Amino acid sequence: MKYTLTVDLGTRSYPIYIGENLLANADFLIPHIAGKQVMIVSNTTVAPLYLQQVKALLGDFQVAETILPDGEEYKTLDILNQIYTQLLTQRFDRSCTLIALGGGVVGDMTGFAAATYQRGVNFIQIPTTLLSQVDSSVGGKTGVNHALGKNMMGAFYQPQAVIADTQTLNTLDDRQLSAGLAEVIKYGLINDLDFFAWLENNMSALLARDADILAYAIHRSCQDKAQVVAQDEREGGIRALLNLGHTFGHAIETGMGYGKWLHGEAVGAGMCLAAQLSYQLELMSENEVKRTIHLIQQAKLPIQAPKEMTTLDFLNLMAVDKKVVDQRMRFILMKGIGKAFISAEVTQEQLNTLFSIH
Amino acid sequence: MKYTLTVDLGTRSYPIYIGENLLANADFLIPHIAGKQVMIVSNTTVAPLYLQQVKALLGDFQVAETILPDGEEYKTLDILNQIYTQLLTQRFDRSCTLIALGGGVVGDMTGFAAATYQRGVNFIQIPTTLLSQVDSSVGGKTGVNHALGKNMMGAFYQPQAVIADTQTLNTLDDRQLSAGLAEVIKYGLINDLDFFAWLENNMSALLARDADILAYAIHRSCQDKAQVVAQDEREGGIRALLNLGHTFGHAIETGMGYGKWLHGEAVGAGMCLAAQLSYQLELMSENEVKRTIHLIQQAKLPIQAPKEMTTLDFLNLMAVDKKVVDQRMRFILMKGIGKAFISAEVTQEQLNTLFSIH
Repeated sequence: MKYTLTVDLGTRSYPIYIGENLLANADFLIPHIAGKQVMIVSNTTVAPLYLQQVKALLGDFQVAETILPDGEEYKTLDILNQIYTQLLTQRFDRSCTLIALGGGVVGDMTGFAAATYQRGVNFIQIPTTLLSQVDSSVGGKTGVNHALGKNMMGAFYQPQAVIADTQTLNTLDDRQLSAGLAEVIKYGLINDLDFFAWLENNMSALLARDADILAYAIHRSCQDKAQVVAQDEREGGIRALLNLGHTFGHAIETGMGYGKWLHGEAVGAGMCLAAQLSYQLELMSENEVKRTIHLIQQAKLPIQAPKEMTTLDFLNLMAVDKKVVDQRMRFILMKGIGKAFISAEVTQEQLNTLFSIH
Repeated sequence: MKYTLTVDLGTRSYPIYIGENLLANADFLIPHIAGKQVMIVSNTTVAPLYLQQVKALLGDFQVAETILPDGEEYKTLDILNQIYTQLLTQRFDRSCTLIALGGGVVGDMTGFAAATYQRGVNFIQIPTTLLSQVDSSVGGKTGVNHALGKNMMGAFYQPQAVIADTQTLNTLDDRQLSAGLAEVIKYGLINDLDFFAWLENNMSALLARDADILAYAIHRSCQDKAQVVAQDEREGGIRALLNLGHTFGHAIETGMGYGKWLHGEAVGAGMCLAAQLSYQLELMSENEVKRTIHLIQQAKLPIQAPKEMTTLDFLNLMAVDKKVVDQRMRFILMKGIGKAFISAEVTQEQLNTLFSIH
């Protein structure tokens, strides 16, 4: 199965190609390269697996590479500067193209480097993890972390194309696969009840890495996300729904130290907290909360916040999150599976109750 | 004399207020502030002079400040990170507003911080040097330097408003005033022969800091620049004209070490080199080259490249400049005063000749 999906953003529209073995075919990549200079940005885990394969497609270009250390803890301004230094050392000009070859961290950093190098150059995403194929590849969010908060520096910047080759998922470890499934489940919870039910029926095939089942889940996830992003590219409103589980999740990632919990793991536990908060506020039925938690557990994700973190840790960390507007914390809650909405009404007391129970 | 000028960029349009004593009046500032949190970014030279005056206008807001070291050599990612850290420490959210209070370095860094903090917050420019009033305040170029090249990381990002108070020029030292005049002269050279002639007649009044004469020169400069920027916001074409003298100038700044030559001084010498190259290529008459060099000299600016730099230094440094497209260096040349154009046709030999003469 091969899918092509267009993210509809006017002059910034771009295609996402999804399927098996796409990296064997130069036709998905080459037409989207501007200029003659191409910098591939990857990391120490992914480069040994796929760098040569991608370079083999780029015979006619001046190709350079920057290999970053692997892990969320390296998503910093300092490491970002390695990309700029390499671009300048190789004398890359503003007509160059950057290719992100790796997971979400590589994609976010390469995208931010592309958004800011010489005030903006082209880039292409080749996401090699499930999480980055279903999440980072749609929506143009790029950025790096600050010691005081996740993704605090960044830009909205769209790629020229995204190539999601399901073949690359075969080298992903189980923990990373599960982390990706957290974001897949999220799309069901936000506004796609049918997809949620499909996931309940197909979770074991996904964990077994059935290529067609994976391609379908990636396509449907990207489609769901692209629909939201097309309505609200810069997160003025409805796009905030995509943060379901993320206010809690970012607090877990920052609180535990970047890299300890994978992003998807933190979002998994965060979605359980969001469901429980929705139940506590009498918005969601007990049965739906149970289905939610069960599916997250089936995906082999954590369903509880880390015991090391106190209620106060959560409150302090959530207070600096980007979801804060005019000093009010915003939460994504659910009126049921597939019925997420934005609330700025959650009180300190309600959060205290939530954390005292769980 | 007070002037209001609108930079016409569709939904990103904004006003520039020019005149004496504008910082005494909250009405120029307050209507452009979004949210409740305001961060003033300034430097160790300007803050003691004007920070209290600006803070006095902001009684109703949560006001914080970041005071940077003064100088082009501090326009780095590391120093930029001080702004992010302060924003996060003060728990500033994405509805906050940044105010740049200072010269071009403060404006460029604050603008880049605003473009990237939480993927974009509002900002307002209060330029306090002649150079920043006539140059950095129009056009939305923001950024920081890399050890290997000037302004190599940045974004196009427009402010909500610019307030250019000519009163602040009274505390500027003579060298900084001259540096600003370099950019003023540039607008005459690019496409405004009448303004060039006016400058020949009014240079001594400008150096004597006549408030009305200064306000007129700032207004006319901003108007000239705004016209170009409105046609080409992201420098796809005609906007490159604004780089007259800058390919040589950036090489001088980088080659001598940031902070040794002021930006305007480097541009002054750079415009002389551009005029001489235009003469060498038989595009510009000897008389016009003389008028150009004479006016730059009258403004007390250097008219020759630094003796410490070799031809090879220039060629190497110019090769990494942002003006390079598809590996061809682009120069802004003149077919006469007020008739600048873009050329990608200058050869290595012609540059060798230029530097062997001067």
